[in-house]
Amino acid sequence: MDVVKVIAVENLPLFKKGDNIGRLICEAAEKQGTPLQEGDVLVVTHVAVSKAEGNIVNLNEVTPSNRALEIAAKVGKDPAIVEVVLREAKEIVRLGPNSIITETKQGIVAANSGIDQSNVEGNRNVALLPVDPDLSARNIRQYVKESTGCNIAVIVSDTHGRPLRMGEINIAIGIAGILPLRDRRGEKDLYGYVLRVKQTCIADELASAAELVIGQANEGIPAAIIRGYKYQTSEVSARKLTRQKERDMFR
Amino acid sequence: MDVVKVIAVENLPLFKKGDNIGRLICEAAEKQGTPLQEGDVLVVTHVAVSKAEGNIVNLNEVTPSNRALEIAAKVGKDPAIVEVVLREAKEIVRLGPNSIITETKQGIVAANSGIDQSNVEGNRNVALLPVDPDLSARNIRQYVKESTGCNIAVIVSDTHGRPLRMGEINIAIGIAGILPLRDRRGEKDLYGYVLRVKQTCIADELASAAELVIGQANEGIPAAIIRGYKYQTSEVSARKLTRQKERDMFR
Repeated sequence: MDVVKVIAVENLPLFKKGDNIGRLICEAAEKQGTPLQEGDVLVVTHVAVSKAEGNIVNLNEVTPSNRALEIAAKVGKDPAIVEVVLREAKEIVRLGPNSIITETKQGIVAANSGIDQSNVEGNRNVALLPVDPDLSARNIRQYVKESTGCNIAVIVSDTHGRPLRMGEINIAIGIAGILPLRDRRGEKDLYGYVLRVKQTCIADELASAAELVIGQANEGIPAAIIRGYKYQTSEVSARKLTRQKERDMFR
Repeated sequence: MDVVKVIAVENLPLFKKGDNIGRLICEAAEKQGTPLQEGDVLVVTHVAVSKAEGNIVNLNEVTPSNRALEIAAKVGKDPAIVEVVLREAKEIVRLGPNSIITETKQGIVAANSGIDQSNVEGNRNVALLPVDPDLSARNIRQYVKESTGCNIAVIVSDTHGRPLRMGEINIAIGIAGILPLRDRRGEKDLYGYVLRVKQTCIADELASAAELVIGQANEGIPAAIIRGYKYQTSEVSARKLTRQKERDMFR
């Protein structure tokens, strides 16, 4: 019988700049009796990663440009936040009430360029997205390989508000060691007919599954281990998960 | 330590019209040594539900309207399929190459009105969405309650292609016994600051987590049990998960 386990990594310290996330997670997982194993998928929130990488900005030190002031007035947001959103953006996708949706420098379409105000120490500090979330994931993966000998997959996750659907879900913004899209075109269905359109974004589904334990404890759990899920390894970037503008009927 | 398990319900028969899905799943779960328990979340694919409810249409028996012929020519699809898509639709949201996105009678925004050509016997048969997916979920929930005494939550799932992101993920189109959106506004974060925007669509995350086992076995697994996840019960409809047009910057 096929069982997939989603295991919370508990009792991690609050991450700070310079921390080795891979090491801290390995230690915490070991301590709670669930050391990382070959084939595990480790999901880590981007805020945890950005804190360890020092990718934090103090809004008091930000001088808004004229463009930021203009947009801030239009959407009703703090001009300093808008300035940071614009600095992190490659392109504005939509403007709405209290909302700026951009494509970030990392190639992710996100509200407020993925900037997070929660779970960051100091109420004028915000966490940016990691500079290169795939690299962040690869670094953790490599540490785990060197330290335990195990090949795992790593996903850096972010919460993601959606067109069409209410509420946020977690998605993958950085990946290492896993093929994020499972292409099932050509496989056969229950009755032997060939599937023609099915391509499943397992990286996003894994990020969402991880949120089932990450979201439960007052924001105190930044990582989860998913065990028992079979996947293909690959070097594909999470950038491939953003729908190209030309192929997006909603952009 | 918080662990959530996603358990495949294996060795289910191919569902046919008139089957009692609740009973068949209870029996299969019992047989494999994982009987349903109090607090479980049971996720069932909509194709399985529609087959048991007889919600199948044979395309050879469909006469396309003029409008269906027109749209079929425009998007390059089988006119009979387009006719069924239009019959199931309340409104067309987008037309694109080989793609019709509608809001269905059930209030779900879906490609091709959620009609499925795979995993349905006979290559001219298609499965529609269940007429009332919440009711389908409630019926299963009630059967389980009566038969085992356990209160569970039930989610009817569908694969869902997305604006902005590549690949499909599973979402909840029918729910029973679970509050689908976890509203975290007012809760405190790691450092005691109050969360202002967080609302997590746990119903969709649970549907995606279930797909980790449902999607693995050549389409042979139409149901999964999620065990160990704490949620609030409610009578809220899955219709609440569709973003209202007025609140959707992408419609």
